[in-house]
Amino acid sequence: MKSFSIKELEFSLQTPLRLKIDNLTKPKGSLGRLEELALQVGLIQQTLSPSLKHPQNIIFCGDHGIEAEGVSVSPREVTWQQTLHFTQGNGGVNFLCRQHGFELKVVDAGVDYDLPTDRGIIDRKIRKGTRNFLYEAAMTEEEMNLCIERGAEIVRQCHEEGSNVLSFGEMGIGNTSASSLWMTCLTGIPLLQCVGAGSGLSNEGIRHKYKVLKRALENYWGDGSAMDVMRYFGGYEMVMAVGAMLQAAELRMIILVDGFIMTNCILAASKLYPEVLSYAIFGHCGDESGHRLVLDALNANPLLNLGLRLGEGTGAICAYPILDSAVRMINEMDSFGDASITKYF
Amino acid sequence: MKSFSIKELEFSLQTPLRLKIDNLTKPKGSLGRLEELALQVGLIQQTLSPSLKHPQNIIFCGDHGIEAEGVSVSPREVTWQQTLHFTQGNGGVNFLCRQHGFELKVVDAGVDYDLPTDRGIIDRKIRKGTRNFLYEAAMTEEEMNLCIERGAEIVRQCHEEGSNVLSFGEMGIGNTSASSLWMTCLTGIPLLQCVGAGSGLSNEGIRHKYKVLKRALENYWGDGSAMDVMRYFGGYEMVMAVGAMLQAAELRMIILVDGFIMTNCILAASKLYPEVLSYAIFGHCGDESGHRLVLDALNANPLLNLGLRLGEGTGAICAYPILDSAVRMINEMDSFGDASITKYF
Repeated sequence: MKSFSIKELEFSLQTPLRLKIDNLTKPKGSLGRLEELALQVGLIQQTLSPSLKHPQNIIFCGDHGIEAEGVSVSPREVTWQQTLHFTQGNGGVNFLCRQHGFELKVVDAGVDYDLPTDRGIIDRKIRKGTRNFLYEAAMTEEEMNLCIERGAEIVRQCHEEGSNVLSFGEMGIGNTSASSLWMTCLTGIPLLQCVGAGSGLSNEGIRHKYKVLKRALENYWGDGSAMDVMRYFGGYEMVMAVGAMLQAAELRMIILVDGFIMTNCILAASKLYPEVLSYAIFGHCGDESGHRLVLDALNANPLLNLGLRLGEGTGAICAYPILDSAVRMINEMDSFGDASITKYF
Repeated sequence: MKSFSIKELEFSLQTPLRLKIDNLTKPKGSLGRLEELALQVGLIQQTLSPSLKHPQNIIFCGDHGIEAEGVSVSPREVTWQQTLHFTQGNGGVNFLCRQHGFELKVVDAGVDYDLPTDRGIIDRKIRKGTRNFLYEAAMTEEEMNLCIERGAEIVRQCHEEGSNVLSFGEMGIGNTSASSLWMTCLTGIPLLQCVGAGSGLSNEGIRHKYKVLKRALENYWGDGSAMDVMRYFGGYEMVMAVGAMLQAAELRMIILVDGFIMTNCILAASKLYPEVLSYAIFGHCGDESGHRLVLDALNANPLLNLGLRLGEGTGAICAYPILDSAVRMINEMDSFGDASITKYF
């Protein structure tokens, strides 16, 4: 697999950043998480005056062989329909991108459909859907490596376009199933607690999904390493997101983490390169059961909890204005000295 | 006291609104609280296509006689200094107003200082600070009625300026003390659980504040009604906010509720007119201890929990983009019919 050179944050700026934040015209600590975010972004960018440039949301799309087992309430065709729909500008992620000034990149990582070539979809298709991991590995090692490389390549392009903050999303019927398996294998949390309703399964549907995934786990004879788990359970869009996150961290970009699936992607990325977490801002704790648990396993405290469970990057993008507020705070607020206000602590 | 005619929401549009939201291209319910907000705003505005117009943040500023008892870490002069500072554009609330397109109105409700007249501060001063409620009522009944009227008048002006969504904030050294007393009197929650650190008291400082407030409560011999509690414990800026909220609800405007103090103001408003709560969107649960409890007493579930405790409307304004997202969702997203996507539920 492609290797990355991800630097642990350098903390020499921590004291001056903290001093600058504490000297703004407000009671110390009174802007709560905005202050934490300003510190993190200052450390990522190694500056007392951080900035956010050209935010982009990248949606990786792909199909999953496991869909054949009836693990999702949504039929497979929804993957290509939604992938195409993102390019029309009227989907869930689109209004959020417009609202918060995000460019949207839609990537075909492995959709089971011949998507039109004139709609701006970035064609990085590995294959028309992964194999069914109930019976065999979702992808070959070669395919996995290709996913990592292609995800990384797209992020390098964003970096060249001037971006320093990216959110990642996904579209792929069946990908909460793959995510639940990544989660149980990489955290040790029992499978039952990792499985949820996805796009809207009934309780009976969840029971069936659990049984299928349990059998898949029993049939798996790999070594349990992050690479092996990623390869065996897929999907292409998820592994591409892992490559994208690792590349973003190498380039010292801010990674906005979306919902259940993307949280499992950064979990896998962190098993390969723990330093990646220093660049991550967790946007949202979603409604998918298991999301809170995987966040806890990562010691992550997401900014929002709005009951979203749409994916596509929506939870990450909704959190962007808070990050923006943090950056404005450290750049735009007066210090006590500027403002002639009695400093009372 | 001025009376208000606040209408309970009319629910005839609930079914069509719900149908419209459920038919957008997403799994049902998957945009969580955005869906709830779109429904509420649709009902407030009585339309399937709600809109947000000319948001304004109104900061009511005033001093408190109780400050003389050492209940705050901040000296009294901070009230006028910050009131003036808001007009310079570099305070905590200012960058948030710029970020989210809010006009800022700064109202002198009762600041203990001769503020300059050329800085755009709206002069509605009742008196230079309330009386010390440890020994006597903070204000007279006449002053209280004047506060309600002046708060209402400012909101009528905002309405004439085309606004349909307002957030309210405050600046007033000592006002967490007044708020704690409103809270204990109007909810029945023991005083101890209503008292917190304000702008940064030590544990010892909190104990002293509690003792002072406990004595004030023992000295109070009123009837415990909302009007009496408001009058007795003040302050001017808080009662003006109550008048403003009631007027906003009468005019069917959206009320964005900020932190601990503003939550206690809408609590008091709701004791006078319970219908006001239908127009309220709770922005933030802050770090002031007691805030979660008063929110629970109101059955309110705020949108954010970012550990803010600055007041000024900051928590409410931070929540505005989520409200904006909800309105964009219902107006900009395709329905399943528009988009030719298989509806799978």
